[in-house]
Amino acid sequence: MPRMEGSLANVLVSTVPFASHDRLPLELLESVGAHVTINPIGRRLQEEELIELIPATEILIAGTEPITRKVLEAAPRLQLIARVGIGLDNVDLLAAQERGIQVTYTPEAPAPAVAELTVGLMISLLRHTHTANALLHDQQWNRFMGRRIGESTIGVIGVGRIGSKVIRLLNSFGVQRFITHDVEPQVKSLHGIAVEWVGQDDVFRESDIVSLHVPLTPDTRNMVGHAQLALMKADAVLVNTSRGGVVDETALLHALRDDRLGGAAIDVFAHEPYEGPLTQEARCLLTCHMGSMSIDCRNRMELEATREAVRLLNGESTVCPVPEQEYLIQAQERGSA
Amino acid sequence: MPRMEGSLANVLVSTVPFASHDRLPLELLESVGAHVTINPIGRRLQEEELIELIPATEILIAGTEPITRKVLEAAPRLQLIARVGIGLDNVDLLAAQERGIQVTYTPEAPAPAVAELTVGLMISLLRHTHTANALLHDQQWNRFMGRRIGESTIGVIGVGRIGSKVIRLLNSFGVQRFITHDVEPQVKSLHGIAVEWVGQDDVFRESDIVSLHVPLTPDTRNMVGHAQLALMKADAVLVNTSRGGVVDETALLHALRDDRLGGAAIDVFAHEPYEGPLTQEARCLLTCHMGSMSIDCRNRMELEATREAVRLLNGESTVCPVPEQEYLIQAQERGSA
Repeated sequence: MPRMEGSLANVLVSTVPFASHDRLPLELLESVGAHVTINPIGRRLQEEELIELIPATEILIAGTEPITRKVLEAAPRLQLIARVGIGLDNVDLLAAQERGIQVTYTPEAPAPAVAELTVGLMISLLRHTHTANALLHDQQWNRFMGRRIGESTIGVIGVGRIGSKVIRLLNSFGVQRFITHDVEPQVKSLHGIAVEWVGQDDVFRESDIVSLHVPLTPDTRNMVGHAQLALMKADAVLVNTSRGGVVDETALLHALRDDRLGGAAIDVFAHEPYEGPLTQEARCLLTCHMGSMSIDCRNRMELEATREAVRLLNGESTVCPVPEQEYLIQAQERGSA
Repeated sequence: MPRMEGSLANVLVSTVPFASHDRLPLELLESVGAHVTINPIGRRLQEEELIELIPATEILIAGTEPITRKVLEAAPRLQLIARVGIGLDNVDLLAAQERGIQVTYTPEAPAPAVAELTVGLMISLLRHTHTANALLHDQQWNRFMGRRIGESTIGVIGVGRIGSKVIRLLNSFGVQRFITHDVEPQVKSLHGIAVEWVGQDDVFRESDIVSLHVPLTPDTRNMVGHAQLALMKADAVLVNTSRGGVVDETALLHALRDDRLGGAAIDVFAHEPYEGPLTQEARCLLTCHMGSMSIDCRNRMELEATREAVRLLNGESTVCPVPEQEYLIQAQERGSA
């Protein structure tokens, strides 16, 4: 990859926030003479907004906004999409590949923050913390009886970087039983913690808590729908800190309204910012795609993505390109569509 | 202790809830022929209410209502106060001792539930879960940036059954530093986890999270006031799942209003049910004395207290009388008052 010579490189930072707690990523870009444009709208961009901003861009430091074929067609100079984060469902990898655009990501950085938030959401659900808090702020004193992590069967679907970390954090709570499901169960190291690999339906059927840690792919889209929610115990709870499209939000709404579920904590939504009917359900604990939003993890993600940009500008190879498997997944999706 | 003969024993259950998830405690009492009266008001009794209910009582299965000298004077037949729980600040131990009334408690049972709730409250505070949830239920999407347990200095004041359990649960999060304070630091086992024993002021000064796990005594009443809150970092958070009188609620309110504190989670209050001005502070995460309110721990507490009652009725010795030290603490309090 030749060094970009003769002109400043145009870097568009579409992810939000960026360099808000640590200016180092910006300083790095400035030190190599990049011309940096930061998302002027301050929230996740829509496709049309990105198309307006992207034409002169050579490097995109990207969040979860839709980076579609149409967007790439509007970006003839684009050489690198450096994702700040792990999910790739928003990037048309095949269209990027056709154009010779590299794509990198930061798969390790978000895991500690997502895992901790997940554990916190689990405890809040089991102990009704969020409902007690809302009621007491409304002057109503209600001593909810709850359950303990240590007395629960924890079901984890998707036991990769984040799912396995959640299990590790929970292990010291003396969890009764971990039941796990993954498309590749055999390759996962679980730090010597005993888990039972079971079918996906069994996770829904037998867990007190079901926690989702899967990417959004054709196989996982609406993976949790009416049928799966119907398998769950009436007092079981669901936690989703993975990707929005994985849970059928309408099915979840009905399960909560019909009292067929103990509760749910949802951090990610099919369309964000979310403003749908789950906001009317007091028992649904809602956060705003905040899984990776801890200062340390966010800094690390931004820095790792920025360093990929700097490498490209210095004529070096990127160190964390998206693996070939991710392209295959999207090719399969294309094939099956 | 002779078996109570000739008449049914009158048992008053003042604690709330009781036998709500498991009828076993009631069945045990019925099996030994006890005449059981359950708190008819359904919330923590006030002194005058207890005085009305207690006259014929021989055994009191007690919660945190005020069991004062005046109450005991109204209970000439009382032989046993079996506390469901660990705190004894509500029981006039010396007045009980003078009348030959035994007092038992259940010090081990609540610890797992309190420790888990504490960890959940910590994560909620660091990640702004409760504020994001309240805003999103009000249709406002706000991606709060937070911090991680694993990047924090955790300060624990009171490292007994519960404080040490909190440390054990948090250890797997890779906590940067535990700093601890206790009146008896040397006798505590910390399961091989490295902690630094420091002065109380240093805990307030250096911690990102301060968690309180002390009984309410003359030494701990209003232990956290203006001076201590002023020592805390502006983004530090306070968690109190111990006893209400330990934190000066007015001082805490001002610290939150003046933005001198990152947040607070308060489960226990000087007067309960709480309806004071902290309910107006969105950043104050409020729960309703729910530390021990998990089904398993609550069952264990109720069962242990009930078994003490059954032992007395069977002419056996109680197994968990309140230790002499607790009487000495109250005698000191009396002396210093």
